[in-house]
Amino acid sequence: MAKVYVVGLGPGADQQMTREAHAVIERCPVIVGYTVYVDLVKEQYPEKVFLTTPMTQEVKRCKMALEEAQNGRDTAMICSGDAGVYGMAGLMYETGKEYPDVDIKIVPGITAANGGAAVLGAPLMHDFAVISLSDLLTPWEKIERRIKAAAMADFVICLYNPSSKKRRDYLKKACEMMLEYKSPDTICGTVRNIGRDGEKSHIMTLGQLKDTEVDMFTTVFIGNEQTMEINGKMVTPRGYRNV
Amino acid sequence: MAKVYVVGLGPGADQQMTREAHAVIERCPVIVGYTVYVDLVKEQYPEKVFLTTPMTQEVKRCKMALEEAQNGRDTAMICSGDAGVYGMAGLMYETGKEYPDVDIKIVPGITAANGGAAVLGAPLMHDFAVISLSDLLTPWEKIERRIKAAAMADFVICLYNPSSKKRRDYLKKACEMMLEYKSPDTICGTVRNIGRDGEKSHIMTLGQLKDTEVDMFTTVFIGNEQTMEINGKMVTPRGYRNV
Ligand SMILES: C[S@@+](CC[C@H](N)C(=O)[O-])C[C@H]1O[C@@H](n2cnc3c(N)ncnc32)[C@H](O)[C@@H]1O
Ligand SMILES: C[S@@+](CC[C@H](N)C(=O)[O-])C[C@H]1O[C@@H](n2cnc3c(N)ncnc32)[C@H](O)[C@@H]1O
Repeated sequence: MAKVYVVGLGPGADQQMTREAHAVIERCPVIVGYTVYVDLVKEQYPEKVFLTTPMTQEVKRCKMALEEAQNGRDTAMICSGDAGVYGMAGLMYETGKEYPDVDIKIVPGITAANGGAAVLGAPLMHDFAVISLSDLLTPWEKIERRIKAAAMADFVICLYNPSSKKRRDYLKKACEMMLEYKSPDTICGTVRNIGRDGEKSHIMTLGQLKDTEVDMFTTVFIGNEQTMEINGKMVTPRGYRNV
Repeated sequence: MAKVYVVGLGPGADQQMTREAHAVIERCPVIVGYTVYVDLVKEQYPEKVFLTTPMTQEVKRCKMALEEAQNGRDTAMICSGDAGVYGMAGLMYETGKEYPDVDIKIVPGITAANGGAAVLGAPLMHDFAVISLSDLLTPWEKIERRIKAAAMADFVICLYNPSSKKRRDYLKKACEMMLEYKSPDTICGTVRNIGRDGEKSHIMTLGQLKDTEVDMFTTVFIGNEQTMEINGKMVTPRGYRNV
């Protein structure tokens, strides 16, 4: 029986792809994904079959992949970053319940948290929490509770989906909650277009972040008590010994 | 001026390495690292200069790399997983203060959280917290506070350094704290030797995890309220809509 591979391409989808991701894409005759990512692969492999669906039709995209595998063709569903972080891996298993013969394999990729951290310096060197500000599928109260808990326990915090047209003020709200527990001088960073053309990063304080506008192509980092700026880089020390 | 690259090899150090990591290692004439990782690279590139130090001499290892770069040789310091997650990236910037002319660049890698998640299925699909149980450089009270906060706010939790000879009962203690907030039926998973020979994973409940012994080559995952087992895989749904 053929397999479905859910493949993370890394944030930049080229140099940050793993060798395994590369080999799986090369091997699979069918590639499924959101149009933008499929187009990136299409140029390199014109002989493959490419199936795309618009952004929102995620269950349909999973079914397309599972059906191809059921018909005997190894299929790679490609996602940006890591397929297991706010990606398609979970939905593929959920949808896969109806296709019990198809084997599903996840091929990990660099997620925006790690890719963005490398651009900023070393913000995630100590315990960190990853939170999405999107309330499309999660009640806002739950997001609030997590932001407050993470801030209270002095986690480094990494925010995905920090903004969208309908949620322009969510980052500001999140910052206000964090300011109940974290100092306004806490070192923060934003990275836009990690690994892509136009990659851009900024380091600032939490007080400044509160009044900063970012878009959905940005990942946001809020330091812990010990995070510092060293020569324009955001650095969280590994330990507390030298304090 | 030459550069120091701090390169994450991914958990398995071969197929899970990115193309960028591969290219940097190929390009740098000097490779610095902990003996085990350096040996992996040595076989492939016998012509390079290899510098190693034992596990504990981390500042010395950073200085060795910075001095090589100061002397004009591009140098790659290699680490397992991602260099920015309980790795060497932060210390390199801290040590680098004394070498202001040397440029430091972090090359991200797949961290154990993402590599292990792919083995288990899709446990990290929703907000998650990464916590190290090592109290070598962090007061245990701080670790406790973070475990409790993360459990209380229903994060998926990923534990690094879950055990060592001196800390055999730390995972048990952590489970007991989480059990104050999470159900004993919470789906959990462990993965040992991610991406390496002998990779092995287990799925169990939090009640069972409490009485499970793991070692330092293991990463541990504790689900959120919604995490489920689907055909032997650990899957956290992306959203709350279908509940
Ligand atoms: C639906 S999530 C997908 C995450 C992806 N699966 C990953 O592991 O990186 C989309 C969010 O991820 C972050 N993101 C993904 N790729 C990014 C990139 N190249 N640059 C900056 N942020 C990125 C942004 O916060 C964005 O709003
Ligand atoms: C000092 S931390 C280094 C983490 C590494 N920099 C990373 O990003 O994965 C060591 C801990 O990472 C986890 N780990 C690293 N590599 C692993 C592997 N191949 N399999 C399982 N766990 C691993 C284990 O929890 C281990 O105790």
